[in-house]
Amino acid sequence: MTKRLKLGMVGGGQGAFIGAVHRLCARMDDKYEFVAGCLSSTPEKAAASAEEIGLDPLRSYPDFKTMADKESKRDDGIDVVSIVTPNHMHAEPVIEFLNRDIHVICDKPMTSTLEDAYRIVESASKSKAHFFLTHNYSGYPVVREMRSLIKNGELGALRIVKGSYLQGWLGSKEEDTGLNKQAEWRTDPKRSGVAGAVGDIGSHTMHLIEFITGEKLLSVAADLTTFVDGRKLEDDASVLLRMTNNIKGNLSISQIATCEENNFKISIYGDKGALHWSQENPNYAMFNKLGQANQIVSRGGFILYDGSLSSTRVPPGHPEGYLEAFAQIYSDAADVIMNKPNKLELLDILPNVKDGLHIMKFINACVDSSNSNSNWTNLSTE
Amino acid sequence: MTKRLKLGMVGGGQGAFIGAVHRLCARMDDKYEFVAGCLSSTPEKAAASAEEIGLDPLRSYPDFKTMADKESKRDDGIDVVSIVTPNHMHAEPVIEFLNRDIHVICDKPMTSTLEDAYRIVESASKSKAHFFLTHNYSGYPVVREMRSLIKNGELGALRIVKGSYLQGWLGSKEEDTGLNKQAEWRTDPKRSGVAGAVGDIGSHTMHLIEFITGEKLLSVAADLTTFVDGRKLEDDASVLLRMTNNIKGNLSISQIATCEENNFKISIYGDKGALHWSQENPNYAMFNKLGQANQIVSRGGFILYDGSLSSTRVPPGHPEGYLEAFAQIYSDAADVIMNKPNKLELLDILPNVKDGLHIMKFINACVDSSNSNSNWTNLSTE
Amino acid sequence: MTKRLKLGMVGGGQGAFIGAVHRLCARMDDKYEFVAGCLSSTPEKAAASAEEIGLDPLRSYPDFKTMADKESKRDDGIDVVSIVTPNHMHAEPVIEFLNRDIHVICDKPMTSTLEDAYRIVESASKSKAHFFLTHNYSGYPVVREMRSLIKNGELGALRIVKGSYLQGWLGSKEEDTGLNKQAEWRTDPKRSGVAGAVGDIGSHTMHLIEFITGEKLLSVAADLTTFVDGRKLEDDASVLLRMTNNIKGNLSISQIATCEENNFKISIYGDKGALHWSQENPNYAMFNKLGQANQIVSRGGFILYDGSLSSTRVPPGHPEGYLEAFAQIYSDAADVIMNKPNKLELLDILPNVKDGLHIMKFINACVDSSNSNSNWTNLSTE
Amino acid sequence: MTKRLKLGMVGGGQGAFIGAVHRLCARMDDKYEFVAGCLSSTPEKAAASAEEIGLDPLRSYPDFKTMADKESKRDDGIDVVSIVTPNHMHAEPVIEFLNRDIHVICDKPMTSTLEDAYRIVESASKSKAHFFLTHNYSGYPVVREMRSLIKNGELGALRIVKGSYLQGWLGSKEEDTGLNKQAEWRTDPKRSGVAGAVGDIGSHTMHLIEFITGEKLLSVAADLTTFVDGRKLEDDASVLLRMTNNIKGNLSISQIATCEENNFKISIYGDKGALHWSQENPNYAMFNKLGQANQIVSRGGFILYDGSLSSTRVPPGHPEGYLEAFAQIYSDAADVIMNKPNKLELLDILPNVKDGLHIMKFINACVDSSNSNSNWTNLSTE
Repeated sequence: MTKRLKLGMVGGGQGAFIGAVHRLCARMDDKYEFVAGCLSSTPEKAAASAEEIGLDPLRSYPDFKTMADKESKRDDGIDVVSIVTPNHMHAEPVIEFLNRDIHVICDKPMTSTLEDAYRIVESASKSKAHFFLTHNYSGYPVVREMRSLIKNGELGALRIVKGSYLQGWLGSKEEDTGLNKQAEWRTDPKRSGVAGAVGDIGSHTMHLIEFITGEKLLSVAADLTTFVDGRKLEDDASVLLRMTNNIKGNLSISQIATCEENNFKISIYGDKGALHWSQENPNYAMFNKLGQANQIVSRGGFILYDGSLSSTRVPPGHPEGYLEAFAQIYSDAADVIMNKPNKLELLDILPNVKDGLHIMKFINACVDSSNSNSNWTNLSTE
Repeated sequence: MTKRLKLGMVGGGQGAFIGAVHRLCARMDDKYEFVAGCLSSTPEKAAASAEEIGLDPLRSYPDFKTMADKESKRDDGIDVVSIVTPNHMHAEPVIEFLNRDIHVICDKPMTSTLEDAYRIVESASKSKAHFFLTHNYSGYPVVREMRSLIKNGELGALRIVKGSYLQGWLGSKEEDTGLNKQAEWRTDPKRSGVAGAVGDIGSHTMHLIEFITGEKLLSVAADLTTFVDGRKLEDDASVLLRMTNNIKGNLSISQIATCEENNFKISIYGDKGALHWSQENPNYAMFNKLGQANQIVSRGGFILYDGSLSSTRVPPGHPEGYLEAFAQIYSDAADVIMNKPNKLELLDILPNVKDGLHIMKFINACVDSSNSNSNWTNLSTE
Repeated sequence: MTKRLKLGMVGGGQGAFIGAVHRLCARMDDKYEFVAGCLSSTPEKAAASAEEIGLDPLRSYPDFKTMADKESKRDDGIDVVSIVTPNHMHAEPVIEFLNRDIHVICDKPMTSTLEDAYRIVESASKSKAHFFLTHNYSGYPVVREMRSLIKNGELGALRIVKGSYLQGWLGSKEEDTGLNKQAEWRTDPKRSGVAGAVGDIGSHTMHLIEFITGEKLLSVAADLTTFVDGRKLEDDASVLLRMTNNIKGNLSISQIATCEENNFKISIYGDKGALHWSQENPNYAMFNKLGQANQIVSRGGFILYDGSLSSTRVPPGHPEGYLEAFAQIYSDAADVIMNKPNKLELLDILPNVKDGLHIMKFINACVDSSNSNSNWTNLSTE
Repeated sequence: MTKRLKLGMVGGGQGAFIGAVHRLCARMDDKYEFVAGCLSSTPEKAAASAEEIGLDPLRSYPDFKTMADKESKRDDGIDVVSIVTPNHMHAEPVIEFLNRDIHVICDKPMTSTLEDAYRIVESASKSKAHFFLTHNYSGYPVVREMRSLIKNGELGALRIVKGSYLQGWLGSKEEDTGLNKQAEWRTDPKRSGVAGAVGDIGSHTMHLIEFITGEKLLSVAADLTTFVDGRKLEDDASVLLRMTNNIKGNLSISQIATCEENNFKISIYGDKGALHWSQENPNYAMFNKLGQANQIVSRGGFILYDGSLSSTRVPPGHPEGYLEAFAQIYSDAADVIMNKPNKLELLDILPNVKDGLHIMKFINACVDSSNSNSNWTNLSTE
């Protein structure tokens, strides 16, 4: 019989968005059983949230320390915990659970400060537990196929990368309406960290470019702008990139790109071919080879290299979406924890603590560059 | 605390496709708990399948009669059963469970014969339980928005409907490979019924046109063709339509349309506007109004009329897909069974026993027309 | 030095649409010099039209007989004449010029009656001059590439063809507004012939399917409808097709498809591949091969088989359109007339008198079938 | 009777690309008669080229000075001259003809050096003749509609602009093959000027952004790269932009973007809406208004503000392309020269000598910025 991993959650109470997504995605492939939580930093709200989703009240905790303590002592205590609080409240619970060797699945970006990021790195190095970061876009099967194509040399030597992640939801001062908790904490430097759009969606963009290409960012020249009057963090950024192996490129990141929904696109050019992917129709990628007709990669369709890296829940033509890609991270994390045969292969692609630190350096370099008149700024090599 | 409905399943064992989809979709919105099953008509296979997916062996039954009997006697017996067997094995279990007032969610088409369809209609009329049919494409939020737009008169008087559902997976004799159970039973008149492609995907197409327009099919002139030598049922059909209110149209149905994946498209034209939808990128529809620029309807985006008919799990731009639409049927059925406030509204749109019978008449009329040189053939009004 | 052919025109005066298109297209590749015309059946309007476009008044004629007579006697008389009158006024001038061995480029459909079509066939058989029909969509380079791909066996044995040509411009009674000459004659059986939409755009659709596939239509089952009250000819048609080599298919033809502009699409399926083309973005086709990733054919880009059959005026990515495709017919006709090396190859693809007659039979068969309750109706083999 | 303008040409002989495009576009709307030329800097080649295209040998000149002299003395001398030589040979003939008050239509960019640009500005200021620059993409009807929409405030206050112009044709060392004259002079600083890709296609991109928005570029931070070994000019550039009214943005310019054909895209975001256009399917634009469903602008279709600024040669759905847009510049220039009623309106939008100088400053600023470690560099205000 299939064993389901016992899952807990910190954050994700009433009014939150991403917590419910994490729970749905954990359910999707039936590898987790959700059994414990500290769903809010306010104990009453934590209890109400727990009741609403049918959590056993005995395993709804008023704070994450109590939860870590009690769960680690139960025979049937949680195997894994999801951390879905705002950025500034990632590090403490992450470290608390890692110290007890409970596996952690943490929302991105890893922390609100570089200091916290280093603390998690250190804690993870001492823990027997795994740490996974939900850079969920790397769970899309077609994105993984793009990574395989490049790894197998289909594009030749890479030359240019382009990423754009454009949203419009912060086009006016949403954070002052009193109706949008997301907008409030994401535009608040105390909770988000030094960056706004760059931290929230720029982090996904840069991670995905590195995930697909296998190359690393070295230096940025960034122009961050706050278009909405009185906002405390930038809501738009243009960034020039220099990467390993002389790859160049640029990023367009915005949360004030009027009428954009979640327009996240990646293009990679090598001297022998190119790949293009758009998140809003994610079941396809364009695969262009020099001297051939352009080709369409279809999820689950004709595929050149994909190994055991992506589940196909439904056949091609039956579109999968955002939730399936997000669930893939949960599914893969479960396979790693349960020592499935493709564990090593999965560990190679699942976003981990090093990715988390690296992306924190990217965020900080963007802010530093923009603060120094867009000077080229190297990522910290500390 | 949220109560979860107790769910059983008949069919869906090892090697089946749609059973796993039903289970995943039942899990997605956390309104069901899967507790019992008769997963195969072969007792050993039923037991093995049950173990594989972690079902309590005491509630894995060797046959559906035993299951219906035992479960109906338990205090914690199933509230709902999913019937996911091949078409010819729908009627018996459906009637068995309806007779015990256990709600039924049945895969489509409703049966393999018109006679069986009438038997289910009669049984349902006497049962206190609900009967739902998984015409899952009616669960797409944008499809429901199209229905609302038409109901609110945005297209004026309807004139033309066009449906095409094109697949390529039966382009050669898959049913002889010994590797494709789907192909075997779907091309076998004993298990599928009188029609092949028309029964399998034509049924979805006709249902969705009627769902969106609120109009009913009256008569067909059909040309059914078996392109693959030796196949026992048609694998392609072109059908002319005449509907209520002088609407005309046509269908293109094929399972030998080479390289098509699941290319299902609907277009509706009225004298004041038109709507277009394509299943392979299902988060959008084209909404064209006379004298205005053409508009794009986006799931979860700007919407004119949608009421409480569709859950938006994630914001626009975060694509949902086939599984979310399918899960919507499960979610809505649960809300009906649990007497949620929008129960009547949901009953109005969920595919039911009348739809099931009507689509069986459509399938039969297509076959009859094609057998009589494509003569116009009215749907049975019995 | 390049010799330019001397070109005359019958029809195409003030208020006409297609005459100006013919003249522009004749100019495009600089192979014609426009020198004479009888631009209207009303002499005063003919003269005024001639002045407006700068035609020598001495070569602006009050009627086509005078024009044919005078021009055939001049040393510098016209080599070619374009016939761009309404359908019922094609046959007389065509025959008049063919009898004088002046080449004819005639707008489609060839005539308004089958009788006239036979008269042109006979006249052409006796003339030394060429007769070309402007089925202009066959001038698109990508369409010609599709023909080459099929001719070279890339799709295997053909199975299904689908054509749809959808416009919305006749959605209300345009012909009664007094502002739309096009609508007036196209809905008038005396000028258009027995069919409306089928004659105007169905003719293009059927021609293009045969052009691309190299196969011939044998029989139709058609449902023609007049949706706009009081209109004299059908404005919508759905047609089932049976072709040579057991190919089947269907057509959707409409001029009341609300908000459609000129939505003309062709799909061809064989047992080894498929091709798809859409006129509104005509520089590309989808080329899908069994067992391979789907490919995009791009005008002027990577191409497998195209020979000397299409001019590339500008490189790929610089879109060509309707006028360039139309001009291709003029350019090719000039090359034939001037005995260029690829004359035979061009004669093989340029729409000719046989195509004109065949399409007239198609139009008549559609009307006959629809009048007999959509019975299967063979094309006349007379 | 319509008078046609007499047109001459400098450059555009055998082996050239853009000369033939200019001639075709001049013919398209029948407002020009091509009568004289100096088609090559080599007299023999000039004569051979003239013969090939049927030019009167008496008006085929061995050098542009002779041509200017002789034509200015003829009663039927040219009204207008097209200058289609490589960049470094624009200034001399332009000044020669302007000095004789012969109108000039000059290919872009205006010159190879800023000095030459100032010389043309001065010469134009003294001439009675008009000077037009073929920034042909501003001739697309949908692009002009975008300009009207913004001018009429539909986007509110502008915030972000994004332009990308991506080609792949210089992905390897084409200039060394001996087969590609285009590649040779465009990568040669003596003929092209200080920039490669930025001068050739970056110039179009920046012009079009300014044309559509009515705003001006102030400062750039650019990273220019030469990816192909041994090439003398950059073949790729990423540029950050700062414009009037606090608008920001970025450009992606490349001629080594593998498999790209002529992928030129513009996006403009204001606080009330956004516009998006892609040159490879140029008959449409996306027009997104806050709080409304996204809309599609279609050439010749439903339009809000367009005045007399674009000819519609064929109805919507009949795609126009690159040549029609290019011909629009010629058509409009003719209307200005012939004092048509909309002359002032056309002068306001036709690319002129000031645009030419401004774009030369943009090119130089990009090079200067890139040479100083991507520092923000203001455009010369001299």
